[in-house]
Order: sequence, then C-alpha cells, then structure tokens
Amino acid sequence: MSFHSMWAELLPVGRSSASGGYRRFAWTPADGECRAWFEQQARDRGLAYELDRNGNQWAWLGDPAGGDAVVTGSHLDSVPDGGAFDGPLGVVSAFAALDELRDRGAQFARPVGIVNFGDEEGARFGLACVGSRLTAGELTPAQAHRLTDGDGVTLPRAMEAAGHDPDAIGADPERLARIGAFVELHVEQGRALDLSGDRIGIASAIWPHGRWRFDFRGAANHAGTTRLTDRRDPMLGYAETVLAARREARLAGAVATFGKIAVEPNGVNAIPSLVRGWLDSRAADQETLDTVVTGIEKAAREHAAAHGVGLDVVRESFTPVVEFDHALRDELARILGKDTGLRVPVLGTGAGHDAGILSARVPTAMLFVRNPTGVSHSPAEFAAEDDCVAGVLALADVLEGLACT
Amino acid sequence: MSFHSMWAELLPVGRSSASGGYRRFAWTPADGECRAWFEQQARDRGLAYELDRNGNQWAWLGDPAGGDAVVTGSHLDSVPDGGAFDGPLGVVSAFAALDELRDRGAQFARPVGIVNFGDEEGARFGLACVGSRLTAGELTPAQAHRLTDGDGVTLPRAMEAAGHDPDAIGADPERLARIGAFVELHVEQGRALDLSGDRIGIASAIWPHGRWRFDFRGAANHAGTTRLTDRRDPMLGYAETVLAARREARLAGAVATFGKIAVEPNGVNAIPSLVRGWLDSRAADQETLDTVVTGIEKAAREHAAAHGVGLDVVRESFTPVVEFDHALRDELARILGKDTGLRVPVLGTGAGHDAGILSARVPTAMLFVRNPTGVSHSPAEFAAEDDCVAGVLALADVLEGLACT
Repeated sequence: MSFHSMWAELLPVGRSSASGGYRRFAWTPADGECRAWFEQQARDRGLAYELDRNGNQWAWLGDPAGGDAVVTGSHLDSVPDGGAFDGPLGVVSAFAALDELRDRGAQFARPVGIVNFGDEEGARFGLACVGSRLTAGELTPAQAHRLTDGDGVTLPRAMEAAGHDPDAIGADPERLARIGAFVELHVEQGRALDLSGDRIGIASAIWPHGRWRFDFRGAANHAGTTRLTDRRDPMLGYAETVLAARREARLAGAVATFGKIAVEPNGVNAIPSLVRGWLDSRAADQETLDTVVTGIEKAAREHAAAHGVGLDVVRESFTPVVEFDHALRDELARILGKDTGLRVPVLGTGAGHDAGILSARVPTAMLFVRNPTGVSHSPAEFAAEDDCVAGVLALADVLEGLACT
Repeated sequence: MSFHSMWAELLPVGRSSASGGYRRFAWTPADGECRAWFEQQARDRGLAYELDRNGNQWAWLGDPAGGDAVVTGSHLDSVPDGGAFDGPLGVVSAFAALDELRDRGAQFARPVGIVNFGDEEGARFGLACVGSRLTAGELTPAQAHRLTDGDGVTLPRAMEAAGHDPDAIGADPERLARIGAFVELHVEQGRALDLSGDRIGIASAIWPHGRWRFDFRGAANHAGTTRLTDRRDPMLGYAETVLAARREARLAGAVATFGKIAVEPNGVNAIPSLVRGWLDSRAADQETLDTVVTGIEKAAREHAAAHGVGLDVVRESFTPVVEFDHALRDELARILGKDTGLRVPVLGTGAGHDAGILSARVPTAMLFVRNPTGVSHSPAEFAAEDDCVAGVLALADVLEGLACT
C-alpha cells in the first residue's frame, strides 16, 4: 500500500466535521480506529505485531530479541482539533520507508521496528507522552492511575473501557534494551525549513519546556450590582498576566502562551470566583526559561494582589532540555548527504516528542519534514506531498544506512 | 407552613455539593423540583394553581378573571452556582405574606396572585427573563425557538423533555390585563441598605443594561514552536479588552464585566483560534452606558488589529432603563411608613428582573431586603433571617394595603 493510500485511509478517522480538525484522544473510539489501522498495516506486511503493557504498538521485521534494533515511528493521537500530520506522518512514513527498502531488495542486518506510541499529545489526561514515559519509567503506574480527564474519567477506567488492562502498565526496560537506535520522523512545527529552502532537517535538541497552572481566586458576585471598588475579580489579574507573559517571552526570545482557561461560574452576569489559566513556556535553555517564568509569576502576583485576588501557581509538568545523540545525528547527516549532496539543516525545536523521552535511554534522532506555513496543532497544519515523499525516502535511506548490509 | 420551613424545604434542591451553589437551570430536573414545590404550596393553601403557556406558575386567591388583581412573586431558577436568595426569597416571602394576612383575618377586596416566572436568570439559554418576556410579547415564539444551550439543546427540545409544549408559547395579554399591580420582593444585590442601616428598600429604577459577545478570531497554532512574530493570538486582544472594560467603567461610574469566556481549541499547548468573551455592562443612564460600551469596543478593535486578530461584536441582549410606576412606589412608601414610621429608602439597581419586563404593561414595584455583604450570584449570597421576616411583614402590609378592605 502506497504512502498516498495509507494517508487517505487515515484521513477521515476522528476528524470533526465541525472544525475540520482531529479529535483522536487517547483510549477513545477514534484512537481505537487508528490502532486497528496500525495493526492491520503490520499484519498486511507480515510483520510481528505487539501491543505492549503501556498501550504502545509495535511492528517487527526480524526478531527484536536479537537486540540492537533500529526503530522508527511516532504517534497517531491528536491535540483537540489538531492537524493530520503531527504524529501520523511519522507512522505512515515508517511503513512506506519499509516498503521502499523491500522494493530496493535491502538485506537487513538488524531487526527493524515500527512503533505507535500511545497518548503522546496528552490532550485527554493533561500529560504528554504517557505511553513513552511509562515505558521509560519516567511516569509511575501510581501517578498514571491518578490522571483524570475533563469528564472525571480516570486513565485506568478509560483504559479498561478500551479493553486494556490498567494494572499491566509500568516501566519496560527490557523492551527499551532491545533498541539500538530510535529515529522519529515528524512534520516541522515551525518555518525554519521553509525559510532556509530545505525539504528535510535533523533535530539538534528539544527546548526545555513546562506547563504551569495559574489559579486566580476572587469572589463571585453579581456583575450588575457590585460596585467596582467592592469587587475581587480574578479575570483582571488573569488578563494582566496574559499580557505579562507575552512581554517576558519577547524580551527573552522565548515563547509563552496562555491557550487554555477554565472559569467558574462562567456566567455572563457573574463576576468569576475562579479563573484558571494554563501557561505553556519554552526557551532555548534552562536559564532563559527560568527568567521568563519567574517574570510572569512575579507580574501575576503583583496584579492579583492589586485586585484583592488570591493566586496559586502550580508547575504541572516540566521537561529539561533534550540534546539528541550527537553520534547518531552525525550518522544521519552523513547518510543523507552521501549520495545526494542533500543539504540537511540541523534544527532545535520547541515541541516535545516521544523521541525526547526515549533519548535518555536509547540513542535517538529526529527527522523533520518541511511545513510551508509553520502552522501546527490546527486543521490548517500542512506539508506538501512532494516533501512527504522526500521524507519517506530520507527515512528509508536512514534505515538502510543503519540496519542493512 | 412557616417561612422557615418553606425555606428549609427548598434549600437542598439543585444545590451542588462541589460548590455549595445552586444550579437550578430552566427545564432541568432541579427546576422541575422547584416547580413541584411551588404547585404543592399552592395546593396546600387551597389556592387555584395554573401553569401558563410560557411555563410561568401562578397560585390564585380569588378569581383573577375579576381583574385588578394584586400579584407578587419572583423566580426559583438560578445562575450557575448562584445563591439561595436571588429569586426564591420573593416566592417564599409571597406565600408567607399570604399566610400572615390570613392569620390577621384580612378581608380581600381584590384577587391576589403568587407567581413563579420561568427562566429568569437565562443561565441555560443566554437570555434573561424568558418567561416574562414571552408573556409580555417582548420575545416572539420564533426567537425563543432559536435559543440553544451550551450543549446544543434548543429551548423547544428542553421544554418538551420537561413535559411542556413548546408550540404553546407566546404573548399572553389577557393574563397581564387581569393584573392591577405587581410587586416583586427581592434580596438586594448591593450594599445600599447595609450602608444606610435599613432592612427594607423600594426600587426606583433598573439601570439600562446589555450583554455583548466579543469574538476574537486568530489562528490556532503550536504554542511551543510558533515564533511570537508569526502568531495571531486572540487571547492577547481579549486580555487587553478585559482591562479596557474596567478602565472605561471606572471613568464613567458604571459597571462592566467579562465573566464568561469560551476558548477554542482550549488546549494547553495550542494558541487559540477563537476567544469568545461576553461583556455585561450597566450604567445609571443610557448615554453613560453608550459611552462605556463604545469605548470598550474601540479599544478591542485597536488591540485586535495590533495582534492580527479579527473581531466581531454582537449585542446579544439589551434592556433600556426601567422607571417603576411612581404612583405605586409612593403608595408602597405610604403603606410601609404609616403605622411603623419605618424608613424605607428608594434605590436604583443594576440588576434585571421580571418586574422590569412587566413594568411596561402593568403598574409594578419592587421591595428589596437588606444584603449585609452585597454579594449575589454566589453561594455566599446571604440575608439575615430577621431581615427576611421583616421583608415578609412588609410584603404582607403592602398586599393588605393594596388588596384588602
């Protein structure tokens, strides 16, 4: 099955007719459809299919027990109203690259695996990369069992509803020990390749990033009858903080975003009792990120105090800077430049990935495919088919260079 | 049944154990429980019970067909996580005042009615005073049929689900023509009586007020990878507008509030595509309100343009200033001052009421009961039992003065 046909099969799964975006959230029916598709692709190719204890799917050519395997893949879940490429491009390209290698008559010297990591986006339970974090032991079963979605459904209940045993989850060092190299292909989530005029890039590092919850607590009251001087309106402190985040990020050359909010009681004629805003911030290095977040929190505290509003700030997640394996990165550059003279820029990225989680335990690299608008996490996310095909061929070259004689 | 017992019966209905506030939204089971309670109170007193075409409940002593009836009452529904007093105090006090008059052996010369207007708060369908607006012909059946709640349920479907015929709704001039005077007792939603040291007040006017929806439309994108200069982030325009609203209201001596927001896609790592904020604004006169809202909209347009964000502003509802009937107001002041020498201040209010809707067609007045904190539309809303009892006696005096020989 060609790249084009695989892509067309996945396109309608979990797509909202209202937004045109994807709602493939972990352990939902749409996620299940994606998983069924993955398993079918594995079986159609005669690959050995495995579902691991943490809900990650694997397709194997050769026996992974032999060790030193070369693995590629990504994820199939999405953010709310996400695009078609973030995740699926890496999985579809993996199968297509394997097909390309078989067409070339490649002789495999190492086992080759294709993986679909579960729950990468964290759209449902608020924590990204749950499948890879569990496998790497960065998330304990006890922590995972406490994760809850917006409707109050816990992760274990959601797993059970999808037919997965939540008591089975946990670190899986044996599985990781089989892997000699992991390469994740991903659509670029920025415009660096577009600006440099290249189809394909190699990742250098993932910026340190984190999520912080700002709870502004005021006093609910009637919006029509409460004098301004009697108010403790948390929306005002929130608004000041949104603007402070932009200022601090601009000064530091970082990014900071308030993209999610929850308001109580959220009535047109009610001053809120609670405005809860989530900050996402990332920077090229730890010190810069610390400066940005400290600045935002300081501004938030000053403005909250000025409006008589309480403030709690909770760091909900944090991922330090990830430097990808230098030897593997150089090897990819050598392979891709060898015959074609292809220029392959090396890029940092602000986005988290399963590759970032694995890189602490396995030599890991990433390939990026050009995104002409830089738009991501949106129905407008896009990569040209020519560039996607270039990505498949680059991934095939990499797998051939790493795994074949 | 005493005021105290009636109050205790209603207290648990529709109360959220999470917030301690009430969620008695129109045509929900909690609303149905309140309605069942009203009907039972009417029947227990031998009053004639009617449910009108618009879902308003009536309890009659004497035949309303006789005309020139004196009606009192309020509503039983609530804002999201509202307090116990806003609405129910007027209904419970109405039954208690009637009991008081019977205890006094009063001889009724006019029919007396008690009313529970449906869907006063507009918490579910976004428009306040639906029951009284329909009856007064200020809302057409076609307009009402287009109202939709946050889950996409239309008002007609919600009515049907609660056993009410949505095709029956519409103007009811015959019903209003029977009413010679309407008096609504309500907890004060401000601190004027507390500051003046009085238990009871009489309304002079309701400020003009309206609701405007501000739709800031940007471009969804990845919060980690999109450069600040490439962003069109609608949250920034929203935040600037929240602060502008406070500034404009303060300058004008008015109130302006952004208390409700809806964000799409509302993901932690996604720049929003849409931030929809609702403005509630009120002022003592029309000209001041126009100045405030024009100033807010101007600021919103400037800031949206500066961030590359689109803006649509829609006025969702508007109610002009309501001057209550001067003769009835003076009559209430005379009755209440007659024997007791009770000082009864005359107050304006920023809150909308069914009394405001009826006042265009029926001589209408309002009594306010002291609220020691001024807090309303919140679980912390409160009036002291002594003051509530004073309200019942004042309402009984008024009914006696208006309806009895």
